[in-house]
Amino acid sequence: MPVVGTSMPRKDALDKLRGVAKYIDDYSFSDILHVVTVRSQHAYGRLIKIDKSAAEKMPGVVGVITAEQVPGKNAVPLVFDDEPFLAEGYVRFHGEPVALVVAETLEQAQEAAGHVRVEIEPLKPVLGIREAIAPDAPRIYKDDNIFSRYNVCKGNAEEAMKKAVHIFEQEYETPYQEHAYLETNGVIAVPGLEDSMTVYGSMQCPFYVHDAVAAAAGIDRNKARVVQTTTGGGFGGKEDFPSVVAGQATIVAKLFNRPAKLIYKREEDIIASSKRHPGLIKMKVGTDERGKIVAALIDYYVDGGAYSTLTPIVLWRGTVHALGPYECENIHVRSYGVATNKVPCGAYRGFGSPQVIFAGESMIDEIAVALKVDPLEIRRLNGYKLGSKTATGQVLDQSCGLMETIDKARERSQWAAKWQDPADRKGNVRRGVGISSVYYGVGLGAGGKHLDRVGTSMTIMKDGSVHCAIGNVEMGQGARTVLAQIAADALGAPFDLVNVVETDTNMVPDSGPTVASRTTFMSGNSLMLAAAELRPRLLQVAADMLGAASPAEVELIDGQAFLIKDPKGQKIGFKELAAKLYAYRLMPSAFGWFIAPDSSYDKETGQGNAYFVYSYCTNIAEVEVDMETGEFKVIRITSAHDMGKAINPQQVEGQIEGGTLQGLGYATMEEIRHDANGRMLNNAFATYILPTTEDTPEIDPIIVEHPYDRGPYGAKGFGEVPLMGVAPAISNAIYNATGVRIRRLPIKPEKILGLED
Amino acid sequence: MPVVGTSMPRKDALDKLRGVAKYIDDYSFSDILHVVTVRSQHAYGRLIKIDKSAAEKMPGVVGVITAEQVPGKNAVPLVFDDEPFLAEGYVRFHGEPVALVVAETLEQAQEAAGHVRVEIEPLKPVLGIREAIAPDAPRIYKDDNIFSRYNVCKGNAEEAMKKAVHIFEQEYETPYQEHAYLETNGVIAVPGLEDSMTVYGSMQCPFYVHDAVAAAAGIDRNKARVVQTTTGGGFGGKEDFPSVVAGQATIVAKLFNRPAKLIYKREEDIIASSKRHPGLIKMKVGTDERGKIVAALIDYYVDGGAYSTLTPIVLWRGTVHALGPYECENIHVRSYGVATNKVPCGAYRGFGSPQVIFAGESMIDEIAVALKVDPLEIRRLNGYKLGSKTATGQVLDQSCGLMETIDKARERSQWAAKWQDPADRKGNVRRGVGISSVYYGVGLGAGGKHLDRVGTSMTIMKDGSVHCAIGNVEMGQGARTVLAQIAADALGAPFDLVNVVETDTNMVPDSGPTVASRTTFMSGNSLMLAAAELRPRLLQVAADMLGAASPAEVELIDGQAFLIKDPKGQKIGFKELAAKLYAYRLMPSAFGWFIAPDSSYDKETGQGNAYFVYSYCTNIAEVEVDMETGEFKVIRITSAHDMGKAINPQQVEGQIEGGTLQGLGYATMEEIRHDANGRMLNNAFATYILPTTEDTPEIDPIIVEHPYDRGPYGAKGFGEVPLMGVAPAISNAIYNATGVRIRRLPIKPEKILGLED
Repeated sequence: MPVVGTSMPRKDALDKLRGVAKYIDDYSFSDILHVVTVRSQHAYGRLIKIDKSAAEKMPGVVGVITAEQVPGKNAVPLVFDDEPFLAEGYVRFHGEPVALVVAETLEQAQEAAGHVRVEIEPLKPVLGIREAIAPDAPRIYKDDNIFSRYNVCKGNAEEAMKKAVHIFEQEYETPYQEHAYLETNGVIAVPGLEDSMTVYGSMQCPFYVHDAVAAAAGIDRNKARVVQTTTGGGFGGKEDFPSVVAGQATIVAKLFNRPAKLIYKREEDIIASSKRHPGLIKMKVGTDERGKIVAALIDYYVDGGAYSTLTPIVLWRGTVHALGPYECENIHVRSYGVATNKVPCGAYRGFGSPQVIFAGESMIDEIAVALKVDPLEIRRLNGYKLGSKTATGQVLDQSCGLMETIDKARERSQWAAKWQDPADRKGNVRRGVGISSVYYGVGLGAGGKHLDRVGTSMTIMKDGSVHCAIGNVEMGQGARTVLAQIAADALGAPFDLVNVVETDTNMVPDSGPTVASRTTFMSGNSLMLAAAELRPRLLQVAADMLGAASPAEVELIDGQAFLIKDPKGQKIGFKELAAKLYAYRLMPSAFGWFIAPDSSYDKETGQGNAYFVYSYCTNIAEVEVDMETGEFKVIRITSAHDMGKAINPQQVEGQIEGGTLQGLGYATMEEIRHDANGRMLNNAFATYILPTTEDTPEIDPIIVEHPYDRGPYGAKGFGEVPLMGVAPAISNAIYNATGVRIRRLPIKPEKILGLED
Repeated sequence: MPVVGTSMPRKDALDKLRGVAKYIDDYSFSDILHVVTVRSQHAYGRLIKIDKSAAEKMPGVVGVITAEQVPGKNAVPLVFDDEPFLAEGYVRFHGEPVALVVAETLEQAQEAAGHVRVEIEPLKPVLGIREAIAPDAPRIYKDDNIFSRYNVCKGNAEEAMKKAVHIFEQEYETPYQEHAYLETNGVIAVPGLEDSMTVYGSMQCPFYVHDAVAAAAGIDRNKARVVQTTTGGGFGGKEDFPSVVAGQATIVAKLFNRPAKLIYKREEDIIASSKRHPGLIKMKVGTDERGKIVAALIDYYVDGGAYSTLTPIVLWRGTVHALGPYECENIHVRSYGVATNKVPCGAYRGFGSPQVIFAGESMIDEIAVALKVDPLEIRRLNGYKLGSKTATGQVLDQSCGLMETIDKARERSQWAAKWQDPADRKGNVRRGVGISSVYYGVGLGAGGKHLDRVGTSMTIMKDGSVHCAIGNVEMGQGARTVLAQIAADALGAPFDLVNVVETDTNMVPDSGPTVASRTTFMSGNSLMLAAAELRPRLLQVAADMLGAASPAEVELIDGQAFLIKDPKGQKIGFKELAAKLYAYRLMPSAFGWFIAPDSSYDKETGQGNAYFVYSYCTNIAEVEVDMETGEFKVIRITSAHDMGKAINPQQVEGQIEGGTLQGLGYATMEEIRHDANGRMLNNAFATYILPTTEDTPEIDPIIVEHPYDRGPYGAKGFGEVPLMGVAPAISNAIYNATGVRIRRLPIKPEKILGLED
């Protein structure tokens, strides 16, 4: 039976449950060195001197490495390459790596790290967006503290605003979010023949790490190899940051010609690794009488931290998605990636969208409230339908299931029965419902299209088992299973015979990052192309074995080949086909190479087909609030998604559950605190509060399938979407219960009670 | 500058000299187990009982593994699969693995191995070819002690013999030869996700090992992975035998779910690993008056040892090559692979040929002596020329350089001045010269054609460096360098940017074994096919960059693209081309898949195109003999070779030097001794004598190039040939010095003095 659309059990589930899966800290190599990072204790300052002498004399220490010893280039290769592997001249955030202590054991390295004396002349740090963009702000990045800026400009928003019947204007703020993956960052760099370097580690983007290894070691890329080990979660946090640790481990391995292991403790992972950007969104929206949006002016700022890392591309996505999935002929979005003296921010599930989604979905709720319209109906009124035009002028000509997600969510959540004016709610404990709708451009989009291609390699072994190497990674999201389903059906092989292995840069060409909900779509398509090359060979073999005049007379499904005209007749099994393929000496391997459908982008106006296709989602949250204490509980979240096609419905539901809980944390508890000097105060799970099973609401996942004709079996991308609209749905539900509008996340009892902004 | 034909320095030379190269014993993995083999002390017997109890109580021992615990199939997959990973029911040779002792340290495993009590009821062993084929021989393999037999029958040799003017009949015998590679056999098996198993180790044939790992573990082949580590020599000895150790380590790793390391001490490597087959050759040759061969009847026996392993295919090659490179219209070869109770024999450089070459080249020398003809001229008279027909009826229609090798060797060795009748030589110390001529079918031939295909994978990295994964291995013969030269020129890339990596079964499809002098030819052709797929993409990019109307207007040589019409004009470097290739999102990887040119074989008559092409060689040896003591010294060997094209002349010369010395050992000192019960007596380098630098004669390598149109740049195969004809050249020189004919190798003073047969 073909398996696409079926909830096949996860290929990696048992190994992970039984502890068989090997994470990077389970690996060792003989003669290995252990590395501990010495970090800046200041948010900003001039690096005067690093005194290694005491540390170098400690037992087991083989060296203390600083910037001037980097064998290659001291710059993490990402977008602007402004971040050093080790601080040079200045330190720019609290926790920045300054030196690497290298010793025979981890304990020796840790002990010695405390004896490296780092002398820093402190400078006054810039600690927030408003501070950084103030006219008299100290200049910490070029002459305006702006890493990058974008513009999306359709129609004439300024003029249209003047003609609007109603005008709404608000500011919204969103906090940091820490990825809190189960496994911290970690790598082992192993030097090899002819100056080669292999890095094993936990990561999302082996090909970014590949760049970093080559850069740090100063070697050609054909001497660098990156092998992803079983990865305990990424959520965007292992997009850019593994390049830092991999580069550092490479530097050590190269200098001492020995394997080097660098694995972060939780505290240093939180203090030093990338986070979701804090956002500041200034929205002005004009509508007609009924609430139809006619003009939108949006200024979007993100706090990029001390180095640009992924800020330019995170910002671009948020800019494009700033208004949400609503028609509007006149829109002007201006966006700014701002430099501050805090930890560099990067990718996090949603990638610059959840900030603007919180703003936009709060704003549309405010409009509905003001105009006394059902917030669900105002979304139906404005929301994208087939033929709608996006903010960038793109016509949605297929696979647009937004309305169906709204309708399905309404029905399943019993919206009609539950929604009422907060003014009518009585009693100390009040319930309320809130809604949000989301759209999400799948893949890297026009801004990243040069990287939007994926390679795979597929081999039919002589026993009929099938080996697939992929360019996107499994990081817990289920890629190996979903891709095995696609490969099996595309080839006509039994699912059990298909093995998709973890990514190794020596096995597949550079396939870009594993981000942007692109894996099922891109790697799936790439596997289908590989299968399309191999399948005719199997059909040829089958035709010979079945005595058919031509392969066109043969069908091959689920590992059984038979004559189309005689489906109940002779069957040839997949193992027999493979044996014959080998007897014929036909090539049993093929590469697949899939280039994303076209997208486009005008630098001046931001207009164009920003992404090749979009996914859609509607969340409805139900909350219960204690009006006396401000304490609240999220009771239920209904989450309806159009992802084109659910290759594995159970995994889709799992993604909805996980993303919803992560969104709930973002909405209601997670925040990073700094002291007045920019030192992070809560880099531990005792102080950075995450939702647990105790906090988990009832989650009702709904699958809506509007197939995309370029997708593998109709699938679009989906992984990030479940998180993205949760915060405003909850916030809108809080309003619906209490009449209190939260414009600065996270939602907290103090804010509901008006004790805190 | 293109590099094919140039003596580029070996890519691996520096790493091996400096000790950077990592051999299998340099690897470790955390939680690793150490394995020591318990062996049979009897050549033949019934396995009564294995008492593990004492050993299992020893410190650090985690288990003692015997046949019934094998998780998969207890049979090494090779040809007939008759050899068990661990003895079951019977032991069949002295040194056969009976149990595996597994412990936390090597020392603990070694200590405990002495406490495993193996109870065997001894049976009378069969210890030699003559004994095994005697009518009343005990039956140790089926009902005739014959593993396999072949027949090559052209014309009517029996009838033609009757009409011959001269008839010569002799028996020749050749001994065991131990490979004596620098690195003994060793592997580490590492269990992975979902019952997968990765084996790292020293080997020639990763795809054979891949079969063994899957079989021993009982897993699908897509869960097995084999990674060749830097390999310290193979010479055929690592064709079949690594399957045994890899299977055994796999069994342990699978049972305990921990990495398992199994590395042989030299003594056990000699006692248990495969050797060159001892041979017995009965020749009857009829000639006309001048010595032109008119009929040949040859019976060829090899001692296969206790299990068939590679005997069937070793025997086939010897059968085809039995008469040597001489025309003869009437020939009948019968050959037999015989079972005995000794170590199983397998592949060794020459693969069943050196035995028959010793016989044939001795015989033709005896004919020349008898007919008073110059032995060089009798070879010119009978030897293959363009248009000749081989023993299997194959017409040599191109690339037949035998005559040129004879002529060049004659000239450089000053044959005419040195050759004279032994009867005319005087004095106690006498010199003499001897000649041999050899032909060698390249590749696996008609018998192994189903395996005669090779895959490679080639990727242009975004910095312009080129990564090549190959299906044949580097084992010290220089493949990585020679193949990088072919890849560089075929692609148009600079040699320094091309990296050919060690073989990993996850990177390339099953490419068969690395044997039969097939690597340069097969992998070279495969790389050329991969390059042929990538090169048009580079030319397209170059055309755009140079403003050419079509790629046909562009040339790309040695990393420089330019307009053909303006070779001195604008040049685009390879790195720029690669960057643009990536900007265009063109697929930067390609597989190459080369299927050997056709060969054929009639099972009844042995007639057909046995191999697609042949290489040729002539050796002339000069020796000096002390007539009183029988002591002798090989002074000089001139070795002229037609390998089609010398891709790297220095490496060709290196192969000639190495092969000559190995042939000298075979000719003059190497032999394995057994006691009357079949126990091997000399399994150490103190007692198994090898030539050293002290024994090295002056070696004069001569390159003769008769290009083969299907070869990469004209190259055929070559690696084995330098060893093959050395023994008869020396033996014939001994005769020419002394008048003593040696018909049983090795040549020893005792034999020259007539004190020993």
